[in-house]
Amino acid sequence: MKHPKPVYPSAEDVEAAFYAAFSRCDLEVMRNLWVRGDVVCVHPGAEPIQGYEAVVRSWRHIFSGAERPNVQIKIIQSIVSDDLVMHMVEEHIGSSAAPHQGAVVFATNVYRRNGQGWLMVAHNASVVRTRQAQSQTLQ
Amino acid sequence: MKHPKPVYPSAEDVEAAFYAAFSRCDLEVMRNLWVRGDVVCVHPGAEPIQGYEAVVRSWRHIFSGAERPNVQIKIIQSIVSDDLVMHMVEEHIGSSAAPHQGAVVFATNVYRRNGQGWLMVAHNASVVRTRQAQSQTLQ
Repeated sequence: MKHPKPVYPSAEDVEAAFYAAFSRCDLEVMRNLWVRGDVVCVHPGAEPIQGYEAVVRSWRHIFSGAERPNVQIKIIQSIVSDDLVMHMVEEHIGSSAAPHQGAVVFATNVYRRNGQGWLMVAHNASVVRTRQAQSQTLQ
Repeated sequence: MKHPKPVYPSAEDVEAAFYAAFSRCDLEVMRNLWVRGDVVCVHPGAEPIQGYEAVVRSWRHIFSGAERPNVQIKIIQSIVSDDLVMHMVEEHIGSSAAPHQGAVVFATNVYRRNGQGWLMVAHNASVVRTRQAQSQTLQ
């Protein structure tokens, strides 16, 4: 069944959809929240991927056979203009089996106003540290 | 001698000044091209540094005693709005002694219109690969 493309009324709505899609390995949601055009996505440690089709392919690859990750985020900087919003985000990525282990990833997410709504135009992520030792001090 | 603060008429001018300051280890230029406020700077592999004073301190630390690096950049994506510009940039960082060795760093640079001019508001860099093996195929 083909769903109608969602209209995201704010950058925050796109971001919520992005992390929901990431957590659920939901390619249908993921493919519909990117601008159809000159987008860039950097997965941790990898080369930048450019262009809508290549970015969607990379997420298809990530989602195929993957265990659903547990993703918690904290926005550490927000830069806002009329038609462009950027969030610097700390992502805590674990698995349901071992929720206190995993990686801390620092990502720059960029959203652009697009007609009536907002879409994602860039995601640049890099691993800052793994979380095993640190989580023990948080419990 | 104290220089007057420069006014950068475009995001591209700030970017040129940023990489010139980086290449020359010039703290005076570097400290005057950031927004005085809620800025973020991520050096490769490190935690995000927040706030103007902390960011300037991190560059002072990097520049102290450092050999001047050789930095070449290539813009791979440019996102532009009236008062915010973002460049995704591939940085090739080497040394004068070994110009074909070094690191390839992928960075997101963000510039904001600020009164009459433009200033840097975020720099998020991560190492993508070292360049030793690859450079041999480019010669």
